[in-house]
Amino acid sequence: MKIKRRLNHYFNRFVVFVLVVLAAGTLFSLPDEGMWTFDNPPVKILQKKYGFTPTKEWLDHVRLSSVRFMDGGSGSFVSPNGLVMTNHHVAVGQLQKISTPERDYVTTGFYAATQDQELKSSDLEVNVLVSMENVTERVKAAVKEGMTEEEALKARKAVIAKIEKESLEETGLRSNVINLYHGGEYWLYRYKKYTDVRLVFAPERQAAYFGGDFDNFTYPRYDLDVAFFRVYEDGKPIHSENYLKWNSKGAVENELVFVSGNPGSTDRLYTYSQLKYQRDCRYPMVLKFIKSWIKSLREYSKNGPEQQRRALIRIFGLENAKKAYTGEYKGLLDEKLMEKRKREEEAFRKKVASNHDWQEKYGDAWEIIDRITRLQADVARKRFYERIVGSQLAGIATTIVRYVEEIQKPDSERLDGYHDSELPSLKFRLFSPAPIYTDLEISNLEWSLRMSLEELGEDNEFVKIVLNSGSPEEVAERLVKGTRLADVEFRKKLIKGGVRAVKKCRDPMIVLARKLDPMMRENEEWYKKNIESVLTPASEKIAQARFAIFGKSIYPDATFTLRLSYGTVKGYPMNGTKAPYKTTLYGLFDRSISFEMKGDYALPQRFWDRRNTLDLSTPVNFVSTCDIIGGNSGSPVINRKAEVVGLIFDGNIESLPGRFLYDEEKNRAVAVHTAYIIEGLRKLYDAGKLADEIEGK
Amino acid sequence: MKIKRRLNHYFNRFVVFVLVVLAAGTLFSLPDEGMWTFDNPPVKILQKKYGFTPTKEWLDHVRLSSVRFMDGGSGSFVSPNGLVMTNHHVAVGQLQKISTPERDYVTTGFYAATQDQELKSSDLEVNVLVSMENVTERVKAAVKEGMTEEEALKARKAVIAKIEKESLEETGLRSNVINLYHGGEYWLYRYKKYTDVRLVFAPERQAAYFGGDFDNFTYPRYDLDVAFFRVYEDGKPIHSENYLKWNSKGAVENELVFVSGNPGSTDRLYTYSQLKYQRDCRYPMVLKFIKSWIKSLREYSKNGPEQQRRALIRIFGLENAKKAYTGEYKGLLDEKLMEKRKREEEAFRKKVASNHDWQEKYGDAWEIIDRITRLQADVARKRFYERIVGSQLAGIATTIVRYVEEIQKPDSERLDGYHDSELPSLKFRLFSPAPIYTDLEISNLEWSLRMSLEELGEDNEFVKIVLNSGSPEEVAERLVKGTRLADVEFRKKLIKGGVRAVKKCRDPMIVLARKLDPMMRENEEWYKKNIESVLTPASEKIAQARFAIFGKSIYPDATFTLRLSYGTVKGYPMNGTKAPYKTTLYGLFDRSISFEMKGDYALPQRFWDRRNTLDLSTPVNFVSTCDIIGGNSGSPVINRKAEVVGLIFDGNIESLPGRFLYDEEKNRAVAVHTAYIIEGLRKLYDAGKLADEIEGK
Repeated sequence: MKIKRRLNHYFNRFVVFVLVVLAAGTLFSLPDEGMWTFDNPPVKILQKKYGFTPTKEWLDHVRLSSVRFMDGGSGSFVSPNGLVMTNHHVAVGQLQKISTPERDYVTTGFYAATQDQELKSSDLEVNVLVSMENVTERVKAAVKEGMTEEEALKARKAVIAKIEKESLEETGLRSNVINLYHGGEYWLYRYKKYTDVRLVFAPERQAAYFGGDFDNFTYPRYDLDVAFFRVYEDGKPIHSENYLKWNSKGAVENELVFVSGNPGSTDRLYTYSQLKYQRDCRYPMVLKFIKSWIKSLREYSKNGPEQQRRALIRIFGLENAKKAYTGEYKGLLDEKLMEKRKREEEAFRKKVASNHDWQEKYGDAWEIIDRITRLQADVARKRFYERIVGSQLAGIATTIVRYVEEIQKPDSERLDGYHDSELPSLKFRLFSPAPIYTDLEISNLEWSLRMSLEELGEDNEFVKIVLNSGSPEEVAERLVKGTRLADVEFRKKLIKGGVRAVKKCRDPMIVLARKLDPMMRENEEWYKKNIESVLTPASEKIAQARFAIFGKSIYPDATFTLRLSYGTVKGYPMNGTKAPYKTTLYGLFDRSISFEMKGDYALPQRFWDRRNTLDLSTPVNFVSTCDIIGGNSGSPVINRKAEVVGLIFDGNIESLPGRFLYDEEKNRAVAVHTAYIIEGLRKLYDAGKLADEIEGK
Repeated sequence: MKIKRRLNHYFNRFVVFVLVVLAAGTLFSLPDEGMWTFDNPPVKILQKKYGFTPTKEWLDHVRLSSVRFMDGGSGSFVSPNGLVMTNHHVAVGQLQKISTPERDYVTTGFYAATQDQELKSSDLEVNVLVSMENVTERVKAAVKEGMTEEEALKARKAVIAKIEKESLEETGLRSNVINLYHGGEYWLYRYKKYTDVRLVFAPERQAAYFGGDFDNFTYPRYDLDVAFFRVYEDGKPIHSENYLKWNSKGAVENELVFVSGNPGSTDRLYTYSQLKYQRDCRYPMVLKFIKSWIKSLREYSKNGPEQQRRALIRIFGLENAKKAYTGEYKGLLDEKLMEKRKREEEAFRKKVASNHDWQEKYGDAWEIIDRITRLQADVARKRFYERIVGSQLAGIATTIVRYVEEIQKPDSERLDGYHDSELPSLKFRLFSPAPIYTDLEISNLEWSLRMSLEELGEDNEFVKIVLNSGSPEEVAERLVKGTRLADVEFRKKLIKGGVRAVKKCRDPMIVLARKLDPMMRENEEWYKKNIESVLTPASEKIAQARFAIFGKSIYPDATFTLRLSYGTVKGYPMNGTKAPYKTTLYGLFDRSISFEMKGDYALPQRFWDRRNTLDLSTPVNFVSTCDIIGGNSGSPVINRKAEVVGLIFDGNIESLPGRFLYDEEKNRAVAVHTAYIIEGLRKLYDAGKLADEIEGK
């Protein structure tokens, strides 16, 4: 359940949030809901429901032990020597990048028995959230009376860029202004950033991803979905002062646990009209797109085992997205869920209307949003298909063309992604030495062009520019074979050469990117002017109405920033029976043999060879009511003492409608049990030294 | 999934059937659907789809090896010495009857290491179907031109009773005329009947019913749901010439298998209006009734462990029924299923209407049925609650009062159940020495009276008679404590004394039964006259229309008579992932430990003690696409060679809407694997001798 990056890019900007009615006396029946910011943890609920109060030290310690993976996941320090735990499926992109046809670490797994064997990843950046500062006043002050909506949007963006730049210059830390509560608050988050991250351990994919796409997002589950990295600075492992102590006994039934990680995005309080737009327009469109891409990649994979290896991770990601979108879509199609959301909105609007002042200030927001979502639906297909997807080279070309132009402008006037504060991470990615495969590039690009042609028709301006009277096949081959952008040095040269070099450049990918750029900018401008600048203040109004009524007894929607969830380790009703809170190694062997040890249910040979040495009653995976979503992958599950008792790697299939509504009865976070990690390291992987480091022995 | 007896008594009489469109060329995509009579197996489908043709010898052998349990289940001979295999949950009623507070065989299990230890069951009757004769012509000839509907019904009943009586007198065999295809055909089935049936082996309930109510009707599953009886005659084990050879390798993935057993009832071709009646009236009513009874029994169980033991089997049966009804109800609430049934009916009626002759003869049937179901809905509650349920003593009283009166009449004029051919089985049950528990009787009777009072109101005639101005509590106590009917000798004396003795009798239960009888008879007469006599010919018309259009390429609805199903051993898509075709002993231990070995997931100590001697990869349960329903419990699963490869004990939860519509994608029959039975007998229960007998060693 890795965060679905990019796909959501355009439409998930508008952070909305969930209303938690804290009526006195109903506290005990409150669900274990919410992805809370560390500045506003649900102290009252925890105290009343669980008799637990997190101290400031507890919160700081957990936050500083938590790590964000810019690949789209979470992690945590688990030793004082920079050892970071995350999921295998968060690490797998990096595993693939350091693999070759001869040494495929995805298939074989990897273990560095000594530090000098630890393998540097190509372009992995991890972040630690070192400080949080409320800058709401400053951001809001930038919008002056009398400004048009467009001017207001611009002013807001400008001040945010300025705050980020100042902070970066002042502290050297990665600095991001985060929009919380749908414009209700703005926070400056500063991150310590690490880019020398080395692989220490990863099991074989068959053990980590046992059950494959079939079992993805389901439970009972039996996955060793873990990987360990070590963070270096100046060529040496860092001293990670804050790290989570290990608890090898692991999670037990009914205990209170927490998850500290970076949930990607939720839409818990889209307005009802926004939900309808998602249901009727966006989800069917995105699902069609995903299915088509998977089909194309499967065709490509048929060319041989190496092609299969190359496409594997992307297919995995898309299958994952397909299952997630399908489950979420099911939520949207669930009339009960939609009805509940409708009723909640009606009650909220009634409450607003009951106060003259509120009604005056906020009352028109819903109609505005309703109108805007209709407009969004009108342009959805055009916006979605007027872009090239899936080609790394095309992406690099666009970045270079824009980079050289943007950095000439004052920071505040640049496009998102090109602010000074964002440049180091941008360059880190842009200059990544990770391999780019020509044939896979051609396949993806051809598919992307074909989709645009099919969906937009040959008379569309974008289609005319990209195809330029060639077929998708011809154009893709000509572009990919003609470009030198696979060479990192060439990219560096262009960046260094600036606008002049890029303008002169006759590389076909760069030429295309140059041709497309004005049109793309125009599209983005149109969107900002007609959608974003209207939607933003309307959403802000709703946010303010909520604050007015409910104060801060609410949590913001997920924004791929650090959050704390809490809950209980427990099973749930499933498909006519009960799912247990945990599974065991017995179950792993059962499921493998039940499927005749074939396909995704095969296990690495070592599992069979060493079966008799294992304690088969060892817990493998377990579930808790913690409220998580994609992006939380790799988050530690901790107990009251902030000891690691598990490792989040998935949500159950019943949790997918959780994007829109949390349901404590069936919504479960699925985690690897710490006992399995230790049992595996010691008895299956001869990694006793690593186990010792983790256990602090 | 034992057949739900009694509950369906009044409303499931009208046998309808499924239409299988045998359009040429679609044979290979035909689902593995149907519960086929042995005179009309789906030979063409089997040949085309599986390349298998059952011979007459094969069919006779399987039929004669199959056993019907009059407790409501199925079984088969598995050795030449009268050894019969069935489910533990079919045997459990008998297990309870031979148990005492001191020796609870339900909890401890039972094994007779030698024949003299085999335990005679109280009142178990088993049947073998020895012949089948088509008597349609004779039954139909009884209805003469010019008869009213009521007279026709009477004439039909009279000739059926006559055929049964003649056959019984001629052959000494249990003889039943079976109404198939909803009045399309009548068959005389003759059964060899056995009443000396002795228990050989039963595991502990914890092993047989592992997972309890939670896992009931679900899969993956891990139950040793097996019991063995031996059939005796004249104090000696019979020589069972026809028995199924054992295959210890058991079912393998993708193989063709058959199920030979007695499915209880299906409603595959109710008309659409009948389905609506079920959905809107009958199911909500029955579910309310079941839930109320369970609640009452759980209250009773709180009185102590012995009370818990006494109520256990009834609660089990009701929980089972509740889950079954809930799943079936879900089918009725499924708009897609209902829509499909509606469209099929429309197409069928169009076909009928396209032929002038057919339209003339059959065309008005649907409107008639529609009208009748409205009438049924009007009287449903009254019919359902104007009776005493759950009290064995009240049932005995009614039987005695009616018996003495009915046997004075000519056979053809008697009430159903009192025909000469039915008397031996009636007496066998009536004179059963099985214990009757006073406190449980009071509890059940009080509950039944209370329900009638609540549902019908105090002004209702039935309520007035039964309560006679007392409270349900007082009346129940007075009746149960005052009656002597718990004494079998007393019952025999009354039967022997005939009408005179019964009329004079001042036993309060008999007195009440006498008072109620005229009213009950009146109700039944009303029902026959206004519903049954109209519905029967209308249903017959539809049956004849189907024969006219489709010939005999169809199978009749289930009628608790012997049927043959066929299918493939294979898994299915489940809750977002796949369910495997089999489970293993690894999985049994996994599920037990996952639930901390508690409650329904506890295992008998022997499983833990002998864990290391077991081959944990032994298959435990498996699924196939065979089309089954309640009553099939205990049916053998056989391969092409008619060898036993498994033992049916359940359907998955997805199969419950199968009462109305078969769905091959997800509908699965769940069976115990023969390998587990042998592994269990030999390694867990020290029953090697029994295993040898089964395996023919």
